Amino acid sequence: MPALDNFWAVIPAGGAGTRLWPLSRRSSPKFLHDLSGSGQSLLQDTWTRLAPLAGDRFLVVTGRAHQHEVREQLPAVGPDGVLAEPSPRDSMAAIGLAAALLERADPDAVMGSFAADHVIRDDDAFGESVRLAVGAARDGWLVTLGIDPTFPSSAFGYIHLGDDLAGHPGAYAVREFVEKPSTATAETYLATGDYRWNAGMFVVRPAVLLDLLAEGDAEFAATLREIAQDVSRLDELWPRLPKIALDHAVAEPAASAGRVVVVPASFGWDDVGDFDSLAALLADVDANPDAHGPRVLGDASLVRSVDSTGLVVPRSGRVVAVVGLDDIVVVDTPDALLVTTRAHAQQVKQVVTGLQQDDRGDLT
Amino acid sequence: MPALDNFWAVIPAGGAGTRLWPLSRRSSPKFLHDLSGSGQSLLQDTWTRLAPLAGDRFLVVTGRAHQHEVREQLPAVGPDGVLAEPSPRDSMAAIGLAAALLERADPDAVMGSFAADHVIRDDDAFGESVRLAVGAARDGWLVTLGIDPTFPSSAFGYIHLGDDLAGHPGAYAVREFVEKPSTATAETYLATGDYRWNAGMFVVRPAVLLDLLAEGDAEFAATLREIAQDVSRLDELWPRLPKIALDHAVAEPAASAGRVVVVPASFGWDDVGDFDSLAALLADVDANPDAHGPRVLGDASLVRSVDSTGLVVPRSGRVVAVVGLDDIVVVDTPDALLVTTRAHAQQVKQVVTGLQQDDRGDLT
Repeated sequence: MPALDNFWAVIPAGGAGTRLWPLSRRSSPKFLHDLSGSGQSLLQDTWTRLAPLAGDRFLVVTGRAHQHEVREQLPAVGPDGVLAEPSPRDSMAAIGLAAALLERADPDAVMGSFAADHVIRDDDAFGESVRLAVGAARDGWLVTLGIDPTFPSSAFGYIHLGDDLAGHPGAYAVREFVEKPSTATAETYLATGDYRWNAGMFVVRPAVLLDLLAEGDAEFAATLREIAQDVSRLDELWPRLPKIALDHAVAEPAASAGRVVVVPASFGWDDVGDFDSLAALLADVDANPDAHGPRVLGDASLVRSVDSTGLVVPRSGRVVAVVGLDDIVVVDTPDALLVTTRAHAQQVKQVVTGLQQDDRGDLT
Repeated sequence: MPALDNFWAVIPAGGAGTRLWPLSRRSSPKFLHDLSGSGQSLLQDTWTRLAPLAGDRFLVVTGRAHQHEVREQLPAVGPDGVLAEPSPRDSMAAIGLAAALLERADPDAVMGSFAADHVIRDDDAFGESVRLAVGAARDGWLVTLGIDPTFPSSAFGYIHLGDDLAGHPGAYAVREFVEKPSTATAETYLATGDYRWNAGMFVVRPAVLLDLLAEGDAEFAATLREIAQDVSRLDELWPRLPKIALDHAVAEPAASAGRVVVVPASFGWDDVGDFDSLAALLADVDANPDAHGPRVLGDASLVRSVDSTGLVVPRSGRVVAVVGLDDIVVVDTPDALLVTTRAHAQQVKQVVTGLQQDDRGDLT
């Protein structure tokens, strides 16, 4: 299949991945790491998945601290394809900047925004969903991909599907975006069959996105367009931009106004939010899931286990022995070691917060 | 209190401490380490405890690989006080060699043999017990110290007490030594009040020990005395010595013959056999046992814990974070990391065996 005409892949590459400490750090966030066992980083996986659709039309938006490593990891993108934010200002500013630049660069552009740190199992199915979404986006819709939920997660927001979208088989109106529900509420969502996970994937014409933003915050959209007109003013204007997520700034109000459509998709998606989901992911992709012992992300010859299951990440070169522990998580790096369980994976954040409070932010 | 006349402290310093891997190694066994949190090694603790009783009369018997470090750790003992075994031949050969040398050096010697890797909490009470034992040993008895059992352990042998020893208040005849019992049998022992733990502590005149040995194995005793007569023959004669524990070679048969007495003692004893007992030991000595978090052997500032208990040994300089784990054991060394639980502490041996089988004996 050829690349999609005028389709631009936008990759916001931000976030520290605090719950994946000490593997993920502020200085080396999770998108720079191989968490899927693919042999390349999540960022490189994202590029690999999008290159057949976008050709050489990429814009990666990342923090200044990471721009060098992003360029090293993505030589094919080229220096102009990597935008460095002066400071983190959440997803609306990052994706909005890309939209403003593309609006000027290519009047026929359709952009698709996909986070740098998600895992997708079926790249072909992903590509099919994006093609559908691009078709609807060309007609002026803000299109989101809605992931088939595989369990009643309370960790993700949901998209409530409405009617079929005329002229675009496979696409549906969005009734509303709903915030992370309780597990019980999520169960009722799954029972209806009308809800999908919101993975923050948007396909849209840049001008449409900015015009939708302007309806709620005209100055925000105008400032983004000013920057695009004269990028030498980036440092001056950037601090004026509100810190807000694209979901809140655009997607939710636009859905209420009937301007958003969704392409339901099932290509095996995970945001690898914590070590529990990482362990599940590696168990899924493991060639031999019945094998004894914990899953290993890295050099399995370093891991010695006796009567144990879970996840071991040996990243310091040392031997790691695990004895008599189920669903254990051991992450061994050169300057810090984490031991927890899959069930307590969310609490890892507390360690990072504690280190920062105790002037050990150097380790985070 | 002055030192005891002609009392010699014999310290067999051997054993790899396999169940304390990776803290204890063949190349660096547990007696060379600070496991009690005292600030000095178990070997140095043993010297400190015995010096008030023995003055400068020490014989430490250790492996050739460790003689250098033993001498460094015990400068007060002097080079002649450290005997290097050509090869490990179990406790009868090691302690018997010391006995043969002392028999020649000091006709009035009484020797007390105490392992280099045990922890004793009350050094004064220990000293009192040894004084009692020395009195009985001067009268020709093989005297053992019998530890008040604090729980029905299946990990120790027991000493069955008999009648009072006339002329030596506080000493009793030994009916028999019994091998490690089941927990149920141990419970019946404790209920009678007539059983003590066998900690392998013996006080005896050297000639008495060798003569008792000769009753069962005349050649063994004769060979030890030949070595003492001409120590230049050590390498030649040593390999002829049987590999047998002193308990089996002398103590058990002598008890059957009514030649052994016991001084019951309660001074807080532990052989620190595994990480479970090490964790219990550190919980006991902790100044603030109600404190949250795991016990730490080493620099507590390296350990970050959230909702966890157990034992952390941070020995690599790295930060160790433990989240949501009860009775966890984490031992962090520069080349190997162990994660287990107190309940599985015995299985650590399997890791060591596995490493040796897989040509990673360098780590053991």
